[in-house]
Amino acid sequence: MIQDPYEAIKELGAAPLWKYYGNLFPAEPKSEAVPYVWRYRDLRPYMLHFSEVLSLHEAERRVLMLVNPGLTEPPATVNSLYAGIQIILPGETAQAHRHSASAFRFIIEGEGAYTTVNGERVDMHPGDLLLTPGWHWHDHSHEGNGPMMWLDGLDYPLVNKLEAGFFELLGVRMQEQTVPANSSTKKFIHGRLLPLWESPAGPHSPIGNYPWSETEKALAGISDEAEGSAVEGIVLEYTNPWTGGPVMPTMSCRVSRLKPGFHGLPFKHTASTIYHVVKGQGETVVDGVKLDWAEHDTFCVPGWAQYAHVNRSASEDAILFSYSDEPVMKALGLYRHI
Amino acid sequence: MIQDPYEAIKELGAAPLWKYYGNLFPAEPKSEAVPYVWRYRDLRPYMLHFSEVLSLHEAERRVLMLVNPGLTEPPATVNSLYAGIQIILPGETAQAHRHSASAFRFIIEGEGAYTTVNGERVDMHPGDLLLTPGWHWHDHSHEGNGPMMWLDGLDYPLVNKLEAGFFELLGVRMQEQTVPANSSTKKFIHGRLLPLWESPAGPHSPIGNYPWSETEKALAGISDEAEGSAVEGIVLEYTNPWTGGPVMPTMSCRVSRLKPGFHGLPFKHTASTIYHVVKGQGETVVDGVKLDWAEHDTFCVPGWAQYAHVNRSASEDAILFSYSDEPVMKALGLYRHI
Amino acid sequence: MIQDPYEAIKELGAAPLWKYYGNLFPAEPKSEAVPYVWRYRDLRPYMLHFSEVLSLHEAERRVLMLVNPGLTEPPATVNSLYAGIQIILPGETAQAHRHSASAFRFIIEGEGAYTTVNGERVDMHPGDLLLTPGWHWHDHSHEGNGPMMWLDGLDYPLVNKLEAGFFELLGVRMQEQTVPANSSTKKFIHGRLLPLWESPAGPHSPIGNYPWSETEKALAGISDEAEGSAVEGIVLEYTNPWTGGPVMPTMSCRVSRLKPGFHGLPFKHTASTIYHVVKGQGETVVDGVKLDWAEHDTFCVPGWAQYAHVNRSASEDAILFSYSDEPVMKALGLYRHI
Amino acid sequence: MIQDPYEAIKELGAAPLWKYYGNLFPAEPKSEAVPYVWRYRDLRPYMLHFSEVLSLHEAERRVLMLVNPGLTEPPATVNSLYAGIQIILPGETAQAHRHSASAFRFIIEGEGAYTTVNGERVDMHPGDLLLTPGWHWHDHSHEGNGPMMWLDGLDYPLVNKLEAGFFELLGVRMQEQTVPANSSTKKFIHGRLLPLWESPAGPHSPIGNYPWSETEKALAGISDEAEGSAVEGIVLEYTNPWTGGPVMPTMSCRVSRLKPGFHGLPFKHTASTIYHVVKGQGETVVDGVKLDWAEHDTFCVPGWAQYAHVNRSASEDAILFSYSDEPVMKALGLYRHI
Repeated sequence: MIQDPYEAIKELGAAPLWKYYGNLFPAEPKSEAVPYVWRYRDLRPYMLHFSEVLSLHEAERRVLMLVNPGLTEPPATVNSLYAGIQIILPGETAQAHRHSASAFRFIIEGEGAYTTVNGERVDMHPGDLLLTPGWHWHDHSHEGNGPMMWLDGLDYPLVNKLEAGFFELLGVRMQEQTVPANSSTKKFIHGRLLPLWESPAGPHSPIGNYPWSETEKALAGISDEAEGSAVEGIVLEYTNPWTGGPVMPTMSCRVSRLKPGFHGLPFKHTASTIYHVVKGQGETVVDGVKLDWAEHDTFCVPGWAQYAHVNRSASEDAILFSYSDEPVMKALGLYRHI
Repeated sequence: MIQDPYEAIKELGAAPLWKYYGNLFPAEPKSEAVPYVWRYRDLRPYMLHFSEVLSLHEAERRVLMLVNPGLTEPPATVNSLYAGIQIILPGETAQAHRHSASAFRFIIEGEGAYTTVNGERVDMHPGDLLLTPGWHWHDHSHEGNGPMMWLDGLDYPLVNKLEAGFFELLGVRMQEQTVPANSSTKKFIHGRLLPLWESPAGPHSPIGNYPWSETEKALAGISDEAEGSAVEGIVLEYTNPWTGGPVMPTMSCRVSRLKPGFHGLPFKHTASTIYHVVKGQGETVVDGVKLDWAEHDTFCVPGWAQYAHVNRSASEDAILFSYSDEPVMKALGLYRHI
Repeated sequence: MIQDPYEAIKELGAAPLWKYYGNLFPAEPKSEAVPYVWRYRDLRPYMLHFSEVLSLHEAERRVLMLVNPGLTEPPATVNSLYAGIQIILPGETAQAHRHSASAFRFIIEGEGAYTTVNGERVDMHPGDLLLTPGWHWHDHSHEGNGPMMWLDGLDYPLVNKLEAGFFELLGVRMQEQTVPANSSTKKFIHGRLLPLWESPAGPHSPIGNYPWSETEKALAGISDEAEGSAVEGIVLEYTNPWTGGPVMPTMSCRVSRLKPGFHGLPFKHTASTIYHVVKGQGETVVDGVKLDWAEHDTFCVPGWAQYAHVNRSASEDAILFSYSDEPVMKALGLYRHI
Repeated sequence: MIQDPYEAIKELGAAPLWKYYGNLFPAEPKSEAVPYVWRYRDLRPYMLHFSEVLSLHEAERRVLMLVNPGLTEPPATVNSLYAGIQIILPGETAQAHRHSASAFRFIIEGEGAYTTVNGERVDMHPGDLLLTPGWHWHDHSHEGNGPMMWLDGLDYPLVNKLEAGFFELLGVRMQEQTVPANSSTKKFIHGRLLPLWESPAGPHSPIGNYPWSETEKALAGISDEAEGSAVEGIVLEYTNPWTGGPVMPTMSCRVSRLKPGFHGLPFKHTASTIYHVVKGQGETVVDGVKLDWAEHDTFCVPGWAQYAHVNRSASEDAILFSYSDEPVMKALGLYRHI
């Protein structure tokens, strides 16, 4: 037995739990992320600026990451999720690659661009939700006029925490198109019908694009008298048609309508959430911090932070797109709310 | 020990298995149902006739049962399923009742009628599929012009074989409408979105009507080059949005497009199937019996009968709606095919 | 339009629903089966008699079917299930065959016999539950002394109602033994552990034998103070280790202990049940009919019949083995109880 | 537009993705954890030392954390999991608390201690696996002779990464015992039987203790000729009896037997694994690093590290207990292997 037993055990790879207890077992979680709003009006000019000075060949992807002030190293938007704003100009292409992190795009503005996912061209229109599940090849192209911008959502912070990140560049810049354009959407979006000769290729939705034209019909289909959620309003979940569950195993995507004057009840859960304002303006109070938001802004509610939404307008709906790691929390038995 | 041991055991409630073996354990199933076509052109005049001579107050439901010649007592269309053609005239109503058997309507012709299911008015248009899951109250009304006719599909033969049939008449003739008309369809049909404040009320789809307008889009969304099924063509399954599975636990509903000149491969499975011709004409050879079919006809393929579909037209699609007890066979480990 | 429209539609394969309504849609189910007890004491001498006068080469299986007085053509014990008592003598063998119907044996008396299921010898001891899932080859042999008797349970009435019965004789009398004797039980019965290099071969349990020695420990493990079921007492379900669900998709097998003086609450459900008395004596009142039972008797409770168990002894436990079609009712949304 | 656009966007909460790309999207994961062995022979004297100099009232738990040299801040054993060695002396008690992190104990040596989990006393014997699912109250007591030592396994590194850690001290030092001692084990461990009057209380196994006496029988039940896994040998998974799945949603627990002379094939997967040597000695080569291990040692294989096990003895089995985050990887679609 050597002199200092604490030193001795350290050399054997051991440490005294009793000196770490409080840090490892907090009374309740306190996210390192802070409540924050990223304002589109302010960021948009810089998007345009970088689109002029930086080519896509240099950048691979021309994206402004929305970095939470509490999560700068490594950068993330909330604990397990990431948001960025991507811009592509007419005539540009973004190199094909794939990663085990799952991704989606929620289109903000522009027309004429498309992404190609595992050989399928998927066209983009404002309000569309396009999926790029983990390990799917994807590249982007723009054949329209004017810049095209969208919100990128990824789970790479989670995937990296879990040490499960893989990445690969395709040998050529752009994929070949091996199936008809937009075929997955055409095949799966209408009538709650499923093609019987196909079967799931993995735990994700087979749909390339949940087009806004359909989302709009779904929102319009809910009567003004519908009960909805006292917290999130008229809130709809994008689903995987093979299972009725979330579109990808790590991220839940939703769209909600806050009716004019909506004041949501305060709520608190362990999932981390990123909201993107499709339309309207309002505020969300998060652990006492008031986040004002307007069209195309992005804001976040860290896990186990109390939040309440308000639609400030007395006449106009507010429409929020959101995504969270709720499926992770639920799959692992860690979802909790009050 | 009494004289004749066979008599003795009979009195004790026993019988010698060795005298029954072959009957109880056939080498393979031979359905009591036979392949058959019910021709709409021939039945329609009688539908109209009965609509003139028999009031709905007398009939409760004015339906011609499509009785398989092999299954007359009790009457059924195939072993576990039933099909009937129902007619209702403008101004008529059909008394509210409910049964543990599950039902659907597939609309053949007419406009202006609706069914009310658990307090929701569900409007009918040709090609629509309306669900009445087990133990849901339902009554029918017709506020349009001209007769309205539809195919009724039920699983009562199965439910009765399983001795699980319950039935109840509502105390009043018609239900009150307690939710907005067509609200379940509006809420669930578009964009693969699910209202998060709701949860499944049972093992069936929450959708009141899968409208033809959406089914048509889904069929149109499948490219002519799609592989489809070599047996059933471009075949789509109506699904329960909460699960991605069949609309009801006992019946699978499908729609298929047989391209011009389609010659399906012969196939054989343990499920019993009823087909209804939405459009087109062709033939299906079932265990050597040729069934010719044309628009609005209904035909059946008994379980474990070999069948092959042909679309006789070189220029027009044939569209078949079908339903079967495949979910039953699969749930019980009894699905088999060659 | 011919003279009699009812005759005319009959020729077209149709019938008027309004003339059949009440029969097809009863207010509630009334099983054709009746409550009944088959007394082992009375049947046993005939078992022995037939074992003397009838060879297994003649009989293929030497079984007395327990035929419900309400279900003689075709014979069944309750609506969807069958029970029989089988006897085999030392030195005898029963020819290998297989059928899509699922089966089990619950051993009543004797030592030294075994069944071979898909190449695995499975030894039999009183109280053991041996499975023969659908389409598994099985033959029986007896290498001990004295007659061996067991209860056979099968779902052939259900399988035949569903027209899904297949049967095949093996080309030779007895299977080769291709895996070590009793290996599935040894591999799966202990410690809630699962061999990771294996995976489910179908929707049934992989366990050849749930030995009484383990069942006894499980029953002994439940404290006398345990709440249990007010209807069935201390009731345990045999499970499929891959899923935690019933041993086979069509039959649930259970064992229950009725403590001395147990008076069960009356209950009623749509499942049909067959009980076998492992030990003790008591009575079960079924829809007003009192069934007295003693050791090794078999009795039945038809679906939707009200029943209540009583253990008549003030000092001894009664142990009941039972099986039912509850998994069928639940899978198809037809389970109901009051 | 201010002078430096990189500075400007920083103030708006944004950062250029193109400057972070490679770090965020590695070609493949490289765990921060390193392969390591913690030697029981070396650590044991310090366990005894601290048990003399530090009271349980001071320590709450007297545990040496097995800290991976690559994961010191915060301390963890592999990326998402933790192992520690706990010691308790006769007459001592450890204060009741609960946490959302899930835990288990695998007993190394001693007799007479027990843990109380949600009111149930669970006795400990060498080789036993005791569960403390998330948010279950637990305290420890020792009524035997001599020190008692066990391996603690927890998922707190994962739970903390996911910001879902909650902790609570009970108001009194020790829980009341509200159910009979060891009742959950007695109720669930034998015969693959399930008590029907109970239902799952959450996504975890209801079993308090998987006793070594049963695990031993399970291992003995696998014939020497069994195929087993070419990587892990005769490997068995502890299961949740309600589902057949892992004992807790975040951790898979296994026991494996490496036959004398076993040389495992090299394997690589994204799950992180901690092994504890129940018996025997051997070596595991992990990404080229040779880890020698002997009885009661603990060693780890980081995620996406290649490993191969060897039982060095020509005559004796080696028995390894292991746990990993494989259920997490599979639930999230991140499990990958080569």
